[in-house]
Amino acid sequence: MQKFMYEALKLAFKSYMNDEVPVGAVVVKQGNIIGMGYNRTEKDQNVLRHAEVIAIDEACNRLKSWRLCECELFVTLEPCLMCSGAILHSRIKKVVYGAENYNFGSTKYIEGKIEIIGGILEEECSNLLSNFFKSKRFDTR
Amino acid sequence: MQKFMYEALKLAFKSYMNDEVPVGAVVVKQGNIIGMGYNRTEKDQNVLRHAEVIAIDEACNRLKSWRLCECELFVTLEPCLMCSGAILHSRIKKVVYGAENYNFGSTKYIEGKIEIIGGILEEECSNLLSNFFKSKRFDTR
Repeated sequence: MQKFMYEALKLAFKSYMNDEVPVGAVVVKQGNIIGMGYNRTEKDQNVLRHAEVIAIDEACNRLKSWRLCECELFVTLEPCLMCSGAILHSRIKKVVYGAENYNFGSTKYIEGKIEIIGGILEEECSNLLSNFFKSKRFDTR
Repeated sequence: MQKFMYEALKLAFKSYMNDEVPVGAVVVKQGNIIGMGYNRTEKDQNVLRHAEVIAIDEACNRLKSWRLCECELFVTLEPCLMCSGAILHSRIKKVVYGAENYNFGSTKYIEGKIEIIGGILEEECSNLLSNFFKSKRFDTR
C-alpha cells in the first residue's frame, strides 16, 4: 500500500514545484499503475484539474472504459466532493489516502459504497502540504 | 431563465441522439453562454464526461480562469455528487436545473453555499429522460 502512496507523493512533489497545492494520485489495477495525476488547477486555470480527476481520466482512456472496476485509487490528500463523486461513478473499489482534508474532505459521502482507508504515509503527505502553505504565508514577493 | 434551459435542452437532445442519458448544460456569464456540454459518458467511455463538467471545462478555458465567479449554470437534470463538487469549487453563483435526480441528485451538499433553483422546464427535461429510459427498456436488439 505504501509503495503506491510513494508514487502518489512523487507526483504531489510536481505540484509543489509548480507552486500548486501539492496533491498527487495514482489509479492502480492488478498491481499496475494505469493513471497518474497531480494538481494543476493554477497552471491550467481549470477547476477540474485535481490530481484524482486527471488520474481517473488517464485510467479511463487507457482501459477505453468508464468502468474502473477492480481499480484502486491512491491519493496524498483525502478527496474533495468533486473527486469523491468521480470516484463513486467510476466504480473504483478502494480509495487509499494520506492526509486528512479538514476543510474539503468528502469521503463521508461515499463511505459504505467504496472501501476507504486513510492515514497511509500521513506524516509525509501532510508535511508536504504544510510546507507549501507555510511558504505561501512567508512569501514576500 | 427558460431561454437558457432551452439551450441546455437542445444539448440534451444531442446526448439522446447518441444513445446516451440525455443531459445538457450551459454556463452563462452576463447573459452570454461561455460553456456548453452534453453527456458523452458512453461515447467517450469516460466517467468525467457529464454535461456540467464539459460545460465548466469550456468556460474555464474561455475565461482562462478556474474562478467562474458571476457565472450561472443551467442543466436539464439535478447535478450528481461529482458535478455538485465541480460547481462548488468553480465558484459558480447559481445553479438552475430542470428535472429532479432522485437517484444521484446531490445539490443538498452545496445548498447554502450556492443559490439553487430546481424545476425549470421540468416537464420537458423529465420527458426526454423518461423517453430515453423507456426506449432502453423496450430495446430488443
